[in-house]
Amino acid sequence: MRRKSNSPYNFESSVQVQFHEVDSLNIVWHGHYIRYFELGREAFGEKYGMGYRALRAHNTAVPVVSVHCEYKRPLTYGDHAIIKAYFIESMSAKVIFEYEIFHAETKDLIAVGRTEQVFTKPETGELILLFPDFYKKWLEELKNSFA
Amino acid sequence: MRRKSNSPYNFESSVQVQFHEVDSLNIVWHGHYIRYFELGREAFGEKYGMGYRALRAHNTAVPVVSVHCEYKRPLTYGDHAIIKAYFIESMSAKVIFEYEIFHAETKDLIAVGRTEQVFTKPETGELILLFPDFYKKWLEELKNSFA
Amino acid sequence: MRRKSNSPYNFESSVQVQFHEVDSLNIVWHGHYIRYFELGREAFGEKYGMGYRALRAHNTAVPVVSVHCEYKRPLTYGDHAIIKAYFIESMSAKVIFEYEIFHAETKDLIAVGRTEQVFTKPETGELILLFPDFYKKWLEELKNSFA
Amino acid sequence: MRRKSNSPYNFESSVQVQFHEVDSLNIVWHGHYIRYFELGREAFGEKYGMGYRALRAHNTAVPVVSVHCEYKRPLTYGDHAIIKAYFIESMSAKVIFEYEIFHAETKDLIAVGRTEQVFTKPETGELILLFPDFYKKWLEELKNSFA
Repeated sequence: MRRKSNSPYNFESSVQVQFHEVDSLNIVWHGHYIRYFELGREAFGEKYGMGYRALRAHNTAVPVVSVHCEYKRPLTYGDHAIIKAYFIESMSAKVIFEYEIFHAETKDLIAVGRTEQVFTKPETGELILLFPDFYKKWLEELKNSFA
Repeated sequence: MRRKSNSPYNFESSVQVQFHEVDSLNIVWHGHYIRYFELGREAFGEKYGMGYRALRAHNTAVPVVSVHCEYKRPLTYGDHAIIKAYFIESMSAKVIFEYEIFHAETKDLIAVGRTEQVFTKPETGELILLFPDFYKKWLEELKNSFA
Repeated sequence: MRRKSNSPYNFESSVQVQFHEVDSLNIVWHGHYIRYFELGREAFGEKYGMGYRALRAHNTAVPVVSVHCEYKRPLTYGDHAIIKAYFIESMSAKVIFEYEIFHAETKDLIAVGRTEQVFTKPETGELILLFPDFYKKWLEELKNSFA
Repeated sequence: MRRKSNSPYNFESSVQVQFHEVDSLNIVWHGHYIRYFELGREAFGEKYGMGYRALRAHNTAVPVVSVHCEYKRPLTYGDHAIIKAYFIESMSAKVIFEYEIFHAETKDLIAVGRTEQVFTKPETGELILLFPDFYKKWLEELKNSFA
């Protein structure tokens, strides 16, 4: 159903499963993967200069408007996982990421996912309908750095 | 993109937004909606006799294999929300729910979503490929009770 | 070690244990009780007119500076619990609550706890060293309403 | 009020504040520190061979029966923190840790805390009143390794 993510703009983070994340079935509760996605997305943002704080410095927020996650295999307590966040170019004024989570040792695919975010003004929540200029400039530079 | 859910098998729960759920943008952090879905799903299960504990009594677990959520409007601290969980009939051996979250006072649509769960044996995680008999019997009774 | 809380200024809330709150030992993970305390505290505040929003309307925040919790008996999935929050008068400029959590059916004592909060200015985090006037007025009215 | 922790049996972990951990006051919500303590405690256990999994291999659980946390200074989004977990010798059959959390850059003391855990049988929750033999042996070895 889902093609493999293949954006060149990607970044890997790692996480170790904590005790409180594991449910009574002895696997990571499915809702925690939303936090893993956020961790991967923010690590990409920090690495390439467009994280939450950089956005706030431009008086812009990017609330999530869509989340999708498919679970392939479980994680359990103490497991180390790799979160691979792919920045996906968007035609409309959105920030799109796709994610792959792997078991760090077995390399098994654990989950795949996707989030979409829109640009808003933090004080009012008002939607910004076109890519902000600072963002277009950043995107240009991102592409050049990978060219 | 998403049609209106219209399964007759649905149930409403309510929730009030707690302080710890609100992020630095003063809105409920998007990951908490996965908990709201679970709350609505389990309330349906408890109401109609097929919640987590009923499943465990049949030595069956139903881990979530897919989550989707679209965010329409934000919730903020103290807001009361209605979670409407729709049980969706599935051809294959899955448990499917769709969700609508409304603001309790304004009746605004806050979010829509969908989860899919599969049947497994709790000890091994082994997939159960066909609907278990006890579940087929329950489903028959659910339909009769709505007929 | 801990005397029974006996402040006349108390309020009861109820909560049902959700699936995601239960850990691999099949009991509510200990960290979630901090949320239960907050729920009980905010319900008291809402009932008596001094919750988070009332405080913000007076441009005041009350960050938690101390939490204590003792766990007596476990809660498990689906359990209903009663959270009893006692407002404790303080000589210094603090907001102090004590808590008792009971199993709703067995009436067993599940946990006891205590939180202390200080008054600050939300923009700067600066400490407010004396009880604010609006708060002293509210406290006077609270006492009168119980007299 | 609280003496400085000075057990020689200590271990440092690090954590970076995630977006979802920050509340509407722009600081880490106080309940998340319970997770930080757990992270520090488990990292100590993994380092010295007595983490959650080692205990389970001995058919023993160590549920938390007491948590205390004092908050000195706030953490905010993106901050790096150091969690220092001190293993404290106990006369009675308990596992006691004390914690100090520091800001990784400023070295400011952010919070201090303490947890107590008891030994139980995981299937029944029954209390184990004396230190288990495997644990006494481990403790002896821990001391020798620091001697």
